[in-house]
Amino acid sequence: MSVRIGVIGTGAIGRDHARRINQVLTGASITALSDVNPEGAKATQAAVAPDATILATGEELIASPEVDAVLVTSWGATHEQYVLAAIAAGKPCFCEKPLATTAEGARRIVDAEATAGRRLVQVGFMRRYDAGYRMLKAVVEREIGRPLMVHAAHRNPTVPEQYVTPMAIHDTLIHEIDVFRWLLDDDYVSAQVVFPRVSSHAHAKLKDPQVVLLETAKGVRIDVEVFVNCRYGYDIQCTVVGEEGLASLPEPMAIVVRKEAKLQNAILTDWKDRFIASYDVELQDFIDAAAKGTASGPTSWDGYVAAISSDACVAAQEAPGIIVPITLPDRPALYA
Amino acid sequence: MSVRIGVIGTGAIGRDHARRINQVLTGASITALSDVNPEGAKATQAAVAPDATILATGEELIASPEVDAVLVTSWGATHEQYVLAAIAAGKPCFCEKPLATTAEGARRIVDAEATAGRRLVQVGFMRRYDAGYRMLKAVVEREIGRPLMVHAAHRNPTVPEQYVTPMAIHDTLIHEIDVFRWLLDDDYVSAQVVFPRVSSHAHAKLKDPQVVLLETAKGVRIDVEVFVNCRYGYDIQCTVVGEEGLASLPEPMAIVVRKEAKLQNAILTDWKDRFIASYDVELQDFIDAAAKGTASGPTSWDGYVAAISSDACVAAQEAPGIIVPITLPDRPALYA
Amino acid sequence: MSVRIGVIGTGAIGRDHARRINQVLTGASITALSDVNPEGAKATQAAVAPDATILATGEELIASPEVDAVLVTSWGATHEQYVLAAIAAGKPCFCEKPLATTAEGARRIVDAEATAGRRLVQVGFMRRYDAGYRMLKAVVEREIGRPLMVHAAHRNPTVPEQYVTPMAIHDTLIHEIDVFRWLLDDDYVSAQVVFPRVSSHAHAKLKDPQVVLLETAKGVRIDVEVFVNCRYGYDIQCTVVGEEGLASLPEPMAIVVRKEAKLQNAILTDWKDRFIASYDVELQDFIDAAAKGTASGPTSWDGYVAAISSDACVAAQEAPGIIVPITLPDRPALYA
Amino acid sequence: MSVRIGVIGTGAIGRDHARRINQVLTGASITALSDVNPEGAKATQAAVAPDATILATGEELIASPEVDAVLVTSWGATHEQYVLAAIAAGKPCFCEKPLATTAEGARRIVDAEATAGRRLVQVGFMRRYDAGYRMLKAVVEREIGRPLMVHAAHRNPTVPEQYVTPMAIHDTLIHEIDVFRWLLDDDYVSAQVVFPRVSSHAHAKLKDPQVVLLETAKGVRIDVEVFVNCRYGYDIQCTVVGEEGLASLPEPMAIVVRKEAKLQNAILTDWKDRFIASYDVELQDFIDAAAKGTASGPTSWDGYVAAISSDACVAAQEAPGIIVPITLPDRPALYA
Repeated sequence: MSVRIGVIGTGAIGRDHARRINQVLTGASITALSDVNPEGAKATQAAVAPDATILATGEELIASPEVDAVLVTSWGATHEQYVLAAIAAGKPCFCEKPLATTAEGARRIVDAEATAGRRLVQVGFMRRYDAGYRMLKAVVEREIGRPLMVHAAHRNPTVPEQYVTPMAIHDTLIHEIDVFRWLLDDDYVSAQVVFPRVSSHAHAKLKDPQVVLLETAKGVRIDVEVFVNCRYGYDIQCTVVGEEGLASLPEPMAIVVRKEAKLQNAILTDWKDRFIASYDVELQDFIDAAAKGTASGPTSWDGYVAAISSDACVAAQEAPGIIVPITLPDRPALYA
Repeated sequence: MSVRIGVIGTGAIGRDHARRINQVLTGASITALSDVNPEGAKATQAAVAPDATILATGEELIASPEVDAVLVTSWGATHEQYVLAAIAAGKPCFCEKPLATTAEGARRIVDAEATAGRRLVQVGFMRRYDAGYRMLKAVVEREIGRPLMVHAAHRNPTVPEQYVTPMAIHDTLIHEIDVFRWLLDDDYVSAQVVFPRVSSHAHAKLKDPQVVLLETAKGVRIDVEVFVNCRYGYDIQCTVVGEEGLASLPEPMAIVVRKEAKLQNAILTDWKDRFIASYDVELQDFIDAAAKGTASGPTSWDGYVAAISSDACVAAQEAPGIIVPITLPDRPALYA
Repeated sequence: MSVRIGVIGTGAIGRDHARRINQVLTGASITALSDVNPEGAKATQAAVAPDATILATGEELIASPEVDAVLVTSWGATHEQYVLAAIAAGKPCFCEKPLATTAEGARRIVDAEATAGRRLVQVGFMRRYDAGYRMLKAVVEREIGRPLMVHAAHRNPTVPEQYVTPMAIHDTLIHEIDVFRWLLDDDYVSAQVVFPRVSSHAHAKLKDPQVVLLETAKGVRIDVEVFVNCRYGYDIQCTVVGEEGLASLPEPMAIVVRKEAKLQNAILTDWKDRFIASYDVELQDFIDAAAKGTASGPTSWDGYVAAISSDACVAAQEAPGIIVPITLPDRPALYA
Repeated sequence: MSVRIGVIGTGAIGRDHARRINQVLTGASITALSDVNPEGAKATQAAVAPDATILATGEELIASPEVDAVLVTSWGATHEQYVLAAIAAGKPCFCEKPLATTAEGARRIVDAEATAGRRLVQVGFMRRYDAGYRMLKAVVEREIGRPLMVHAAHRNPTVPEQYVTPMAIHDTLIHEIDVFRWLLDDDYVSAQVVFPRVSSHAHAKLKDPQVVLLETAKGVRIDVEVFVNCRYGYDIQCTVVGEEGLASLPEPMAIVVRKEAKLQNAILTDWKDRFIASYDVELQDFIDAAAKGTASGPTSWDGYVAAISSDACVAAQEAPGIIVPITLPDRPALYA
């Protein structure tokens, strides 16, 4: 049976997910759309989901008998209410990051899902579905001994003026925060932020680059360079240092060219290209679990922990040189 | 409307394609299966195509009103008859290589399709759908000037005893023969085969390795090392040398590990892993074209030319040092 | 005229330098040897310096009319006295690290040389003479914009039990401390040390690995992993992140092998092999300057600043998480 | 005792070798110079060999009691006479390639040296002294099993108009001809030349690129691309395919830069930079052997075999598609 999916929020990502489900993936179809801007919903309907009904509100969509599972791709501030409503309706729900705009909001979702007693929420941390990270995790688990350190970088060619210092955590580092927990099967216990001299390409309200230092419960030390005006490309680097050896994330596939006195290959410049294949895998995983009435992949607990950890990193930004502790509440049995 | 597909031949590749169509790709479903061994068809039905009807013969399957399009994945010697039947029925047909076991057989298919006046056949040359070759083709066309030479290798760790010298052409080089025509938009005019000393890992009826030298109509010179007992891995190499620079096929994605005094990454050892993603793209292309009642991708003309070119290479194997000319008949307008 | 060189201390490094001067380099010869263990001096004489006179003490050697310039390769605790004596004698002096065992001792050498009013001392920081670092410096200065960060690693396969935690600074990081000052044309203003969980291959008195964080006067932030039981090899990594791009130290030259399902190349395991060529360049530079009665390359000021910076790093080891300031005295005009 | 060396021919290479011997290497000095153009000799004397005497002729230089060993770096057509004179005088002689302008001339040198009964001649095939080739040879001998094939390329960015088709053999391929004999410890038995379409950057009298196919006595098959207007750089590639694996010549050391959407490193553009370090090693080897009254490294037999092999390749250029046999005379015992 095909899973009937409703999409709340038909901006770029919502529309793209709708396309993916209707045209690329298997086992599901888009049956309902909703957007605060009805024109957006109509455009998505016309472009990629001709069989979908447009509903006035997210709540209506969640309640619809034509909808088995929900995609929350609306404005971040509305995520919490829709995810809570989906849990209340007992419908599997895929929510793009952030799960909620505050750790408290994420906590309410965790509590609701734990009360429901079964997985219903998947958070959109797509890196866990990237082929490179999956290969890296397999090698880390099998070949290099206990992990001791991670050296990483998240670089973006440029950001607009509205991108301010805390966004380096909430919009950028958030992906490393989640994926390293998964990669290491570990949690953070402290954060520190180091500010190098500011790039002359940064805007007035942005200290760029930054180095974030994280410590895990197992004692792994992580350093992540976040550099969002690095100019040269969108570049994600990750090396795990273990007791017996090192393993590094592969570079994206590229043609090696010898030309004009250079041995060269292209570096991606648009973040959308870097993890594009992982969105397909991520949503197929959602569909497959939703077909069984449940959810898979990153949990609302993961979303909640990411929120707590991010808040600590922002606190660390505001107190450079200070090591900010990260304390997690007990993990509900559902997420054990 | 979903394309209803019948599969003739439910061995490993037929079954895998059925799985792909039913579980991974979009826009089609398997509605019929046929195999000379009915147990094989039943096993495929049970495993991946529960809604498919099992039909007694390929001809019956092609004629079935429940079948819009046909996959020919049976024993090679039967390909020609089924493809001709599909053309006669006006149904799009995907045929695994070889299109026919002789160039004359392939010619009959070309003639039938040309008479039908529209594309109905796609030959299973999956490399054209590989992301690496596609990136390479884009770079070759835009960045390195006119191609002058190609240096290539097709290496396999080991082959069984029944793999004899001509199979290095018909089963192995055949992929290069097709993909270089596509990569260069060119045709072959001659072939020569060079035999190095034989590897001690080769069997009695196999001269291994071989170097095949091809010349194209545009004057490009190609050397391909075919080495099917190379021991170390399944390795496909291709560098195009142009007037302004060189471009090389990317290595498959791999984790770089530093361990035990080696900077190292895994090389694939099983050919099935190397182009696995391209099978999905290839069959989705087939489905998308079949939905419009036609075929896309490698044509029966391509299959025919590959057969002619392969025959010349085998003739060149039998006369080492001799340059064997390759003459192609006129290309029917359908394949212009 | 050939420079006549006396060597004080004929252990492994002293003997190797004597061989280098007599058998590889040009413009100098070994005319005198001295060692607290006369047998060592005799062995070096027999092996590589048959024309050298053996003198009883370093002071005698420095005073000898047969000696134009001095190599101090004795036990570290004796370096200061011999270097001071050489300065007093007005003879150019090459001193292996450390210049002195304390910053105060190094200061005395700086003062003596400054009083002498001309360069007479070269400290044995050989990395400045390494072809890779020199290429890196050229690229950093020309191609990547202002440096903002350095990510580095100094890894050694294993260390003996007597190697204790502070030696990670004094014996290992000391090379990075010097070479980054030179690479960036900058000085340190603070240090912090981070301890990951300890490798199970470390000995009881060694916290291994460590991450040292350095901040420079220009605001560059440096992170150096020091991991001396990394098992897999001797591996020196350095990437400079600039405003316009990144530049990385080359890997040592190695044959790329495809074998046993691995694309692989050897990593060095012995630190002596990594910078072996740079010793020749370093000592030739010493000879060339000594021929003119002066010294070149790393100065006693560099040795003194390295000592101050190292002391701060050791203080930072003892207070994990604390940022230890590094304050330098004014730079004498001689070293401007 | 320092070896007293006389240089015949003080053009660019002669002068550079004189500088090398006087300023870089150990154990020798330049005591005599000779040039058909006395101004050239004077310039070299002034620049790098102030203690050398200028003699009127090469013969006079060879006869001089101030000369222990001879460097022949004069115009190619004069090499034979000077080398024969040096052999007659019993003085070690380093001769830049070609040993003689004809195979017959090289034969006369071989015969003279064989009659003399001891090695006196070293031919200037510097690649045997390159660190990369030496590492490759070590790996080929130990790690990849019996060699079966070699894939190689010799690319140059551009050549002047006077560079005509046969020079691709005599001036360019000559280095591969020698170094592969040494690398494989083997000899050639046939040659064939393949001409791809001509690059539009080639001049009227030059077919460029070419592919030269060589077969060895042991059955190794070698393909070498010679492309002297490749535009992008001076690039020497060599991969040896063995029964158990492959080994490739390392790329020259280069800084890896990430900049402007490219992962890139510089490729050399000037051939003089590629093997520059090997000239030092080569001449030090000459000096060390000359000090013992003999010669080391590439022999006059090697020079003679290179001449015979080159002649076959030129014959193969003139008969494209024809496999030209290469027959060597018996090897004199001196070169066993």
